[in-house]
Amino acid sequence: MRSTAKPAGTYHHGDLRAALIEAGLALLEERGLADLSLRAIAARVGVSHAAPRRHFASLQALLTAVAAEGFRRHAAALRAGLGQGASRAERLEAATLGYAAFARENPALYALMFSPILVDYGDGELGEAAAASYGVLAEIAQGLDWPAPEEPDRDRRAEAMLWSLVHGHALLAQAGLLGEEGADVRASVADIMPRFGYREG
Amino acid sequence: MRSTAKPAGTYHHGDLRAALIEAGLALLEERGLADLSLRAIAARVGVSHAAPRRHFASLQALLTAVAAEGFRRHAAALRAGLGQGASRAERLEAATLGYAAFARENPALYALMFSPILVDYGDGELGEAAAASYGVLAEIAQGLDWPAPEEPDRDRRAEAMLWSLVHGHALLAQAGLLGEEGADVRASVADIMPRFGYREG
Repeated sequence: MRSTAKPAGTYHHGDLRAALIEAGLALLEERGLADLSLRAIAARVGVSHAAPRRHFASLQALLTAVAAEGFRRHAAALRAGLGQGASRAERLEAATLGYAAFARENPALYALMFSPILVDYGDGELGEAAAASYGVLAEIAQGLDWPAPEEPDRDRRAEAMLWSLVHGHALLAQAGLLGEEGADVRASVADIMPRFGYREG
Repeated sequence: MRSTAKPAGTYHHGDLRAALIEAGLALLEERGLADLSLRAIAARVGVSHAAPRRHFASLQALLTAVAAEGFRRHAAALRAGLGQGASRAERLEAATLGYAAFARENPALYALMFSPILVDYGDGELGEAAAASYGVLAEIAQGLDWPAPEEPDRDRRAEAMLWSLVHGHALLAQAGLLGEEGADVRASVADIMPRFGYREG
């Protein structure tokens, strides 16, 4: 038992919810999804094990909020890249590297965000956060000069290609299957994106 | 209880092992990994629930053998592609499409083959099967004229890029995240691979 345990009432309204999500994020990376429980998260925050029920009906509900926070941070990492670099090409590459870095630094969170237990994002908080994140990705992909302008579904296909590349790379690298050379996403992005070229704009 | 139940002794040596792997493959796609058990697999084969223990100490051991069979079929799908098409470019593209088709047609098996529960393949049957499958993939990747010949780790980086692309595409398409246009891997492969160009040979 933690000596810091205190009643949930010590938290202002909303603060406990945020503290539970923050603890969920930390424990997810430390212990992995399989060892996560509402009880462990409550202990981390220092509240009674009944307290999380004020905000989350189940561990699944808390995980959904954790994944939504993950998508918001993911979108922020992509947007930060779009704000860097002197040329448009540099900004698009920096944003793509922001995607890869987020996945590398938050492996368990990234896996949760694409987990089959959540993949039907719905139209609640999670669906909104995921859509915002995908929107930035689509913006990056639409900077590529590929496929040819006259091709049908040009933007959607560019997005599918770029997303497949970074998603697949993140998962294979995490699994240790790419070796040191292959896992160097910086070299690959700097090499691959110019091969497609960039649209005007 | 199935009326076809019979003692394991009815099988010739080795046949029961093969029948259990075959049943494991079928049940994996029908029910998913979470609902698989040695008992269910024994029932499918029509033997007592103790019979699988003659060949597999645990469900994990049987799943390892199922994944190894998966990698053998995966390698065969890639090789079949390499045997098609008039030009080398066509053969490399057909092999890449063979990879994508295998993942699409065997989603649960493909996920098992890259599951964290198995990903340290070791040097047994699974490690050997996985290495053979990756070997064909490397052969395809080395047909791409990318990165530049003078680049270090050229072959390894080409493999990481191509593998990331098809692996990521397979998983995002399975999760229903690419939409109909983005999920058309045939169009993407036929468009992307020539963008890199092919080496002589």
